[in-house]
Amino acid sequence: MREMTEFDDATHVAADDSTTIHDGWDIGGNANGGYLLALAASGLRRVAGRPDPVSLTAHYLAPGLPGPAVVRGEVVKAGKRFTTVTGGLESVAPDGARRTVIQVLGTFGDLATNAASDFVAMNGAPPDLPQWEHCVPRESNGIVPVPMMDHLQVRLHPDHTGWLRGEKAGVAEMAGWFGFADGRPLDTLSLLLVADALPPAVFNIDIPPGWVPTVELTVHVRAVPAPGLVRCVFRTRFVHGGMFEEDGEVWDSAGTLVALSRQLALLPR
Amino acid sequence: MREMTEFDDATHVAADDSTTIHDGWDIGGNANGGYLLALAASGLRRVAGRPDPVSLTAHYLAPGLPGPAVVRGEVVKAGKRFTTVTGGLESVAPDGARRTVIQVLGTFGDLATNAASDFVAMNGAPPDLPQWEHCVPRESNGIVPVPMMDHLQVRLHPDHTGWLRGEKAGVAEMAGWFGFADGRPLDTLSLLLVADALPPAVFNIDIPPGWVPTVELTVHVRAVPAPGLVRCVFRTRFVHGGMFEEDGEVWDSAGTLVALSRQLALLPR
Repeated sequence: MREMTEFDDATHVAADDSTTIHDGWDIGGNANGGYLLALAASGLRRVAGRPDPVSLTAHYLAPGLPGPAVVRGEVVKAGKRFTTVTGGLESVAPDGARRTVIQVLGTFGDLATNAASDFVAMNGAPPDLPQWEHCVPRESNGIVPVPMMDHLQVRLHPDHTGWLRGEKAGVAEMAGWFGFADGRPLDTLSLLLVADALPPAVFNIDIPPGWVPTVELTVHVRAVPAPGLVRCVFRTRFVHGGMFEEDGEVWDSAGTLVALSRQLALLPR
Repeated sequence: MREMTEFDDATHVAADDSTTIHDGWDIGGNANGGYLLALAASGLRRVAGRPDPVSLTAHYLAPGLPGPAVVRGEVVKAGKRFTTVTGGLESVAPDGARRTVIQVLGTFGDLATNAASDFVAMNGAPPDLPQWEHCVPRESNGIVPVPMMDHLQVRLHPDHTGWLRGEKAGVAEMAGWFGFADGRPLDTLSLLLVADALPPAVFNIDIPPGWVPTVELTVHVRAVPAPGLVRCVFRTRFVHGGMFEEDGEVWDSAGTLVALSRQLALLPR
């Protein structure tokens, strides 16, 4: 009998749509945005009746504190190839009061079977990342505790870790390896977690110190990942008006681009 | 008395949320995706009670045929700085039957007043675009009629127009100028139209011929545009699995990045 992996346990949604925002998938007490998106998608893909998130957008409305929650969702359109759902993840207080943590809009499909074209044109490549053993583990016990890292294997490009010593690289780029600590294989659901699992790329430039909350995160899942770790890179090009974007690429062990992400985040006030 | 501009007329939503998908904002009979998003946002920003779309995502579910429609929307959260709404644009058939054309999730704010930080870090610049008079007008009467162009002033980078003569540039990039034909000033609502108003960047590479439907379009509006035309550039880097992304930047006459866009689209089957 196979035991449930940590990620499957943390993203389990019961048949009645109830779930739990699990403790230990947080950064300084707030559940990670990618984890919350994966948790919501775990429920919403069942609503959709299709296994893979293809394009998923979440707006972050309240901190994800550990405890009871529910995934609500409804089908907007079920088409031949895709199903689009709207919904959200709501925390449930002891008195039963619900609060929307993230509101989600997404389209689901079956990426293993429904590629409609074999045309390929790629203008880009996986990030130039040193081998795993030459990269820097992201620890759970840093200046700000990142308990989520106890469940993950994340190693950062050494050139992107100067901020840990107060030395800013000057370019808002963060690249690294990602896998699960318990060896769970990566699937399309877990790519939603990958999309928000590295430290913010802006840590490598001189932004004002503080929390950088996500307003919105969109992930395009482009393919089912091959076995093995994924390589990812996140970049911010434009910081102004109190906001910035962070664009991510996730590449699997076979060199296939498996996800693109973009989030809109806020500078510390 | 000031007459209503073409764009304001085409995106007008009545107090009872009824509206009209206007004829003449289409490409070969299907209403343009940016126009549909602007029309929905015109209604949803009133629901939100805040003037500017900050991050807006639409999933495209049915063709936008000219005729009666309604914008439905509800507030998910009204915060101190932003209001998040969910909703959609529905077409209304003669028998009253409704069909969702686009489903939308968005956060609205007031960009003119609520920048929370004056920190600026930009790693990028407006596209290198020849002067207006040296660019190529996008006509409404091409191989595929683009009636929308009668309302717009769009001029393309000459290096990105070889596809009009069957000569592919080989790089999926499309840059150009954008303004309204009647001189209407650009505002944040109109940036949603800009985000989908140029020919697809993939027209400059050898993709299979045919319609490239949008699955999802997200626009981040980063600032209120200064008076004058905007310069924009759209790029596709990754085409595989029957899908591709198109990333856009919109820069105003003062050199400010006013919008970023990304869409997920499908290759012809």
